[in-house]
Amino acid sequence: MTYELYYWTGIPGRGEFVRLALEEVEADYVDIGREAGDKEVISMLDASTTPSFAPPFLRHGEVVVGQTAAILFYLGPLLGLVTEDERLRLWTHQIQLTIADMTAEAHDVHHPLGPGRYYEDQKDEALRRAEEFRASRVPKFLGWFERILTDNPAGRDFLVGKSLSYADLSLFHLVDGLNYAFPRLTKTLAPRYPTVMALHERVRQRPQIATYLASDRRTPFNVDGIFRHYPELDAEG
Amino acid sequence: MTYELYYWTGIPGRGEFVRLALEEVEADYVDIGREAGDKEVISMLDASTTPSFAPPFLRHGEVVVGQTAAILFYLGPLLGLVTEDERLRLWTHQIQLTIADMTAEAHDVHHPLGPGRYYEDQKDEALRRAEEFRASRVPKFLGWFERILTDNPAGRDFLVGKSLSYADLSLFHLVDGLNYAFPRLTKTLAPRYPTVMALHERVRQRPQIATYLASDRRTPFNVDGIFRHYPELDAEG
Repeated sequence: MTYELYYWTGIPGRGEFVRLALEEVEADYVDIGREAGDKEVISMLDASTTPSFAPPFLRHGEVVVGQTAAILFYLGPLLGLVTEDERLRLWTHQIQLTIADMTAEAHDVHHPLGPGRYYEDQKDEALRRAEEFRASRVPKFLGWFERILTDNPAGRDFLVGKSLSYADLSLFHLVDGLNYAFPRLTKTLAPRYPTVMALHERVRQRPQIATYLASDRRTPFNVDGIFRHYPELDAEG
Repeated sequence: MTYELYYWTGIPGRGEFVRLALEEVEADYVDIGREAGDKEVISMLDASTTPSFAPPFLRHGEVVVGQTAAILFYLGPLLGLVTEDERLRLWTHQIQLTIADMTAEAHDVHHPLGPGRYYEDQKDEALRRAEEFRASRVPKFLGWFERILTDNPAGRDFLVGKSLSYADLSLFHLVDGLNYAFPRLTKTLAPRYPTVMALHERVRQRPQIATYLASDRRTPFNVDGIFRHYPELDAEG
């Protein structure tokens, strides 16, 4: 049964966390935004009996599920991208929710006054928010990912157990987003989080992910998305 | 087996979403922060093999789970506070994640530049962020909750199905927090969201919840928590 991913066109955004999971296993999926445009996404948003507050959401047969982490929780077992151990499934989900929290903060750096105003209208505030993000929040989050990777009793290759989960793919995307948005920060901080950076590199080289990243299905990062490169917000860490 | 809730003392915070679920069913639980202080919370945060990024987290036998929505996802079946239907369990979780999103935005109103600075040092920015929160975000979120309540095929008494779930308790707390933090806004907006407000009132009058709210186990809202009453951030809607 085909998976239908509903997300805005033109940005990787939160849809990319779902897309990476679908691409890794070569799932049979349709990217509705790309195929049919944003209007179709909005139309389905209004039509569902379990409507998502916002994209992304996924349709799979009669299931319509929104919230990125919930979508991946649903997809994980179907795509073979999560362990069968119930307790570790919950742990994988908990990690995913923490990735979501950091993603939201990465967005709020350029939109500290809320999503409704343009960046240009809140640039001074963004400069101030970026200071704390770089100095305190990024080290705290990356430090947590480094710790749980190094503490994984099954080894440091994956976040949970000894095989790939959707959380590994999402952590790859998070680091990828930081690399794009804050290149000076990420480059100078990287030596402090070697296990996180090694995971990012390994995921990047996985055959299906590498094929996907080189394809026209991959939307490049840009300054309309969650991770935005504004040089004035970046600095060495 | 006793549930141990780990959360900061002195504020209802995100721990309150979990506490309400435990209180509704008179679960056998210990509020570790209240009993043993913040040091014990921090100590356990560092000791777990599945460490939460931040409180709240729950210990139940060998399970240690963090992230408010994940805690409730775990507790729901154990406390009888979620349906047995798998698809509706996912929907309940999706609603909870949206409640978490609105809660985070309610926090960011008074901390637009990040959690590390005092409110007094970001008050001008908070005044600007509050405008958009009141005019656009609160109506969008409350409108969504109103819609899914009125569209519940099993009736308007509960968010999912025809019995109480942890999401109903959490929506109660969210509205309660808005009532405290933004009394003028909430009072003037309330007539537009009658089903949400009716649910809030029904939950408040449930016997166990009423008993809990009147007890000394309930920490009152205050200006150290997520929902803060700063009169200058409030206005009619």
